[in-house]
Amino acid sequence: MTVRFGLLGAGRIGKVHARAVGSNPQAKLVAVADAFDKAAKEISATYGAEVRSIEEIEKAKDVDAVVICTPTDTHADLIERFARAGKAIFCEKPIDLDVKRVAKCLATVEKTKATLMVGFNRRFDPHFAAVKKAIDDGAIGKVEMATITSRDPGAPPVDYIRRSGGIFRDMTIHDFDMARFLLGEEPVSVSAHASVLVDRKIGEAGDYDSVSVILETASGRQALISNSRRATYGYDQRIEVHGSKGMVAAENQRPVSIELANDKGYTRPPLHDFFMTRYIDAYANEISAFIAALAKGTKPSPSGADGLAALKLADAALKSVKTGKSVAVQ
Amino acid sequence: MTVRFGLLGAGRIGKVHARAVGSNPQAKLVAVADAFDKAAKEISATYGAEVRSIEEIEKAKDVDAVVICTPTDTHADLIERFARAGKAIFCEKPIDLDVKRVAKCLATVEKTKATLMVGFNRRFDPHFAAVKKAIDDGAIGKVEMATITSRDPGAPPVDYIRRSGGIFRDMTIHDFDMARFLLGEEPVSVSAHASVLVDRKIGEAGDYDSVSVILETASGRQALISNSRRATYGYDQRIEVHGSKGMVAAENQRPVSIELANDKGYTRPPLHDFFMTRYIDAYANEISAFIAALAKGTKPSPSGADGLAALKLADAALKSVKTGKSVAVQ
Amino acid sequence: MTVRFGLLGAGRIGKVHARAVGSNPQAKLVAVADAFDKAAKEISATYGAEVRSIEEIEKAKDVDAVVICTPTDTHADLIERFARAGKAIFCEKPIDLDVKRVAKCLATVEKTKATLMVGFNRRFDPHFAAVKKAIDDGAIGKVEMATITSRDPGAPPVDYIRRSGGIFRDMTIHDFDMARFLLGEEPVSVSAHASVLVDRKIGEAGDYDSVSVILETASGRQALISNSRRATYGYDQRIEVHGSKGMVAAENQRPVSIELANDKGYTRPPLHDFFMTRYIDAYANEISAFIAALAKGTKPSPSGADGLAALKLADAALKSVKTGKSVAVQ
Amino acid sequence: MTVRFGLLGAGRIGKVHARAVGSNPQAKLVAVADAFDKAAKEISATYGAEVRSIEEIEKAKDVDAVVICTPTDTHADLIERFARAGKAIFCEKPIDLDVKRVAKCLATVEKTKATLMVGFNRRFDPHFAAVKKAIDDGAIGKVEMATITSRDPGAPPVDYIRRSGGIFRDMTIHDFDMARFLLGEEPVSVSAHASVLVDRKIGEAGDYDSVSVILETASGRQALISNSRRATYGYDQRIEVHGSKGMVAAENQRPVSIELANDKGYTRPPLHDFFMTRYIDAYANEISAFIAALAKGTKPSPSGADGLAALKLADAALKSVKTGKSVAVQ
Repeated sequence: MTVRFGLLGAGRIGKVHARAVGSNPQAKLVAVADAFDKAAKEISATYGAEVRSIEEIEKAKDVDAVVICTPTDTHADLIERFARAGKAIFCEKPIDLDVKRVAKCLATVEKTKATLMVGFNRRFDPHFAAVKKAIDDGAIGKVEMATITSRDPGAPPVDYIRRSGGIFRDMTIHDFDMARFLLGEEPVSVSAHASVLVDRKIGEAGDYDSVSVILETASGRQALISNSRRATYGYDQRIEVHGSKGMVAAENQRPVSIELANDKGYTRPPLHDFFMTRYIDAYANEISAFIAALAKGTKPSPSGADGLAALKLADAALKSVKTGKSVAVQ
Repeated sequence: MTVRFGLLGAGRIGKVHARAVGSNPQAKLVAVADAFDKAAKEISATYGAEVRSIEEIEKAKDVDAVVICTPTDTHADLIERFARAGKAIFCEKPIDLDVKRVAKCLATVEKTKATLMVGFNRRFDPHFAAVKKAIDDGAIGKVEMATITSRDPGAPPVDYIRRSGGIFRDMTIHDFDMARFLLGEEPVSVSAHASVLVDRKIGEAGDYDSVSVILETASGRQALISNSRRATYGYDQRIEVHGSKGMVAAENQRPVSIELANDKGYTRPPLHDFFMTRYIDAYANEISAFIAALAKGTKPSPSGADGLAALKLADAALKSVKTGKSVAVQ
Repeated sequence: MTVRFGLLGAGRIGKVHARAVGSNPQAKLVAVADAFDKAAKEISATYGAEVRSIEEIEKAKDVDAVVICTPTDTHADLIERFARAGKAIFCEKPIDLDVKRVAKCLATVEKTKATLMVGFNRRFDPHFAAVKKAIDDGAIGKVEMATITSRDPGAPPVDYIRRSGGIFRDMTIHDFDMARFLLGEEPVSVSAHASVLVDRKIGEAGDYDSVSVILETASGRQALISNSRRATYGYDQRIEVHGSKGMVAAENQRPVSIELANDKGYTRPPLHDFFMTRYIDAYANEISAFIAALAKGTKPSPSGADGLAALKLADAALKSVKTGKSVAVQ
Repeated sequence: MTVRFGLLGAGRIGKVHARAVGSNPQAKLVAVADAFDKAAKEISATYGAEVRSIEEIEKAKDVDAVVICTPTDTHADLIERFARAGKAIFCEKPIDLDVKRVAKCLATVEKTKATLMVGFNRRFDPHFAAVKKAIDDGAIGKVEMATITSRDPGAPPVDYIRRSGGIFRDMTIHDFDMARFLLGEEPVSVSAHASVLVDRKIGEAGDYDSVSVILETASGRQALISNSRRATYGYDQRIEVHGSKGMVAAENQRPVSIELANDKGYTRPPLHDFFMTRYIDAYANEISAFIAALAKGTKPSPSGADGLAALKLADAALKSVKTGKSVAVQ
């Protein structure tokens, strides 16, 4: 069976997903839509997909599934439209920045029995996936404490921050999903601290650039998250999980693994400096997983509910910072 | 100048300090006191020190300084007695488990103008000291976020835990001191989570075995602490400090640095399994620093105030766990 | 400009090169030939290339360049044919196992002014290339000593060994090329030891499975090569170059970078277990370099002369083992 | 039983051994002799040993064993004198630079049934000893290939080189001993290359500063040795042994294990810059082993025969360089 795809949004991340669909023997990129004609045409030229409007893709008989890579504020609407149109949906995270809007959207998905997968790509990073597998294989016994360190090479433009929902909803949200993925239990309380240490303008825009979070599950498992909007040494992405029998950790990734030794010491190059090179395999693997699930008729994961759960943790963390209290998560 | 020492307490840690004093060319171990005669005699035989009572050492003209390694509940009294006796004092941490008692003790030290150094030995670990030096040299710019991971190979007997003041006051207290040492600013608020994941009996004794703490300073610098009473892979002791220009970290230590490769992978041996082998250099270095300060007439550090500050953080962490709130530290 | 390609040989390595050509925006895979129709058709289906005979490709007006991935004993003949046909040629190593045959073939290439690149793919490994770049950038000063460790996960079938020309010509030859690449001077003498430690049948077939080689250049620079046909821990591929100002080394590569810690120690997974996954980037990069050279009209490297030089070192090493003498290389 | 010691030679290495004897509960440093009175007196003051002449120590009833740390050209004579005097002997390597003189000396030792241990301290390095233990425990199966990398931070004065017997006899000799220690079989042939790359003056003094050596045993096991008189990154001391079931390696050692990350990459400090700090534990452990053997009445190792065997390999390597042939070792 070949899954026939429509791509909504032909920007940076759209191109990444187009490549994943285009090179997958079980899939075919049939159509592409983008407000900017040039972007859509580029994808069309490379993969032979037809440039169409969103409406045309919505109604198309030759499209089984869509990949939504449009701006965040269109995600929930598009999910609802394509759920009703009977298409399987892969949507870039987040579904929406507002918990209520997400809940409403997921209700529609449920009612229409649509298939929805949310793009928490990091679950598909080979290194993080291997950590998860080691846990599932029992290598560390019962999970007890997770530590997630996640630092960006540099802060995004303040304009982006204004629209992103803030650091907890646009950056830490990946770590909240990773914590849920690794802890094996739902966090029930959140304590967070946040400050502006990197760029005063971020503070003026009402956001933070440096945050620390503790999550705790009902049985007392804990996750620690450390975020910064700036790391001179590259895109710092580490996870470590400690359990009753041991610990498993994923190391940072760098473009080349060489070491230079001289009178100053032993130096390895900086880490990847961009999330798209760091997570290049993760992006390819998540689309493969979506296609494989559709081809097999199984439910893809992470689901819309995973998207909602991570967003609730982000809201709780923000509330914890504002109130100075540990916040319960429903 | 030779500093003449009396040793109070000839147990495990007393022996470590006796060796440090005995091998220091600027110091001489003159006297040793211990309730168990055998322990005192052993030290006496090895280093030529005379076995005396505490009273005799208190009054001795040939003793300039004492090292207090007696049980915790005697520390404050002994500090006061020897402060009044005009001796310089090195006291194992903690001064006392009660903040008020510590404050009263320090008032006496101040009134008598006695010299007091408190045994936060980790500041003298060569690796941690090198991290601190890198920070002081400006290698990472302005300090922003510290992560301290500290896990014991195994939990102490529940009996010990009953007397120790609990995990925050006997274990995390080292990390509180390290956070103060590294952040370069005083923490003003503390959020903590704690649970019983390792041993139910620890919970029955009213304590926790797994804790996560966030400290924040007035300018928004943050420290994350992760503790567990059990780590199958050894004595896990890591610090990492992230700043505006970079990051510096101290790696774990193992008895031998070999790597075995086979069809299972590449394996390095477990870490040290005991704090006294892990911190063997730190113990020697802290006594050297005390002796050097006395010999030069400078003020040794960490001081009694450092002991008090760390204890206040421990109390605040415990209060945060109990109340579910971020606790302000005065 | 688009370079139009014919692929000769659609086996394992042919597929790898087909993908590299197929995904390169400056290239187009026009035709494919293979004695096994099924293999050729598979490539044809995936990349739209036409299945043709070698003769048809030789005469084709719509083919600018060929990639030769046929069995070793056809390489020299095909190079000569396609050189005369005016096609640019990328040929998998080796050109031939016999130095005289290679020399004759290269004479034809020179006479016809054909463009020939030989597939020493390791030069294009990102890690090894970064080592070379560090050297060229002067990071280690003047090159003095290189150490190349190269071990296969397991020995090839004895049948293969019989046809391969032996360990020096099929395995060490990569390291000879790497040594030439890194030393920056031609080796002028070779000392080698060889023995059968892995599999007695290899010895019965007249070959060795464990070899050590020293190369020396006219100015006294030295390279050490260590080879084994079997390594339980995976495909062990390391290079290290020591110079007057420092050292630079490329580390081994593994599929995932995780570490598991428990009471046995800290374990990272084994290395890649297959040369095609280990050198997946190198294979892609070498074809990109070939295409880029053709597109720009520059001379691709490594050349046929590089292939000949490495083969001469292999012959010299074998002679050194047989005679117990250091062998001069012309 | 307490072993009573005389120390012959109170220089740099004499002081190291004095400390090892002085802090060993089974030993006592009774006497010290040195041509320079001041050096002897310093040892005397610290450890309470009496300053005596070599003759006095030779005849002393209260001396069971001697540690010979005098200049190399006196070693053989002193071993013979003290063997005849019935003392147990620990002698710094080498016994002599001349194979015949060593053989004659060892004949005397044998005739007098004296106990002789030679100071190949590296066997007692905890990391190298752990490698050996892993081999002996069967962790890597049958030993096949060893790689020993040994580079000094800087070249010794040319004056020293003139007296040292050359790089093979003063530097590589440690690696020859290590190869014998690790291979588990005697090398029977040696191929070596040597050149002058570091300092022209070393060449003018008739020696080399950069050498590569292959050793082979009767069953075909191989060892590779790489030496340089200069490494900007510190005292580079690595061993790696590959076997039928795996590989075991000892990593380099540095004074502190920290890592600094910034926009230039991740940097660890240089290695130890001095053999006495790098091998501080090895020096202490070898004397402990000597004392333990005397106390137990067992034969200490490495023996005089080990010293002779390493020297023969050094001579063979030199001959290989001069003749361009692989040299057989008897």
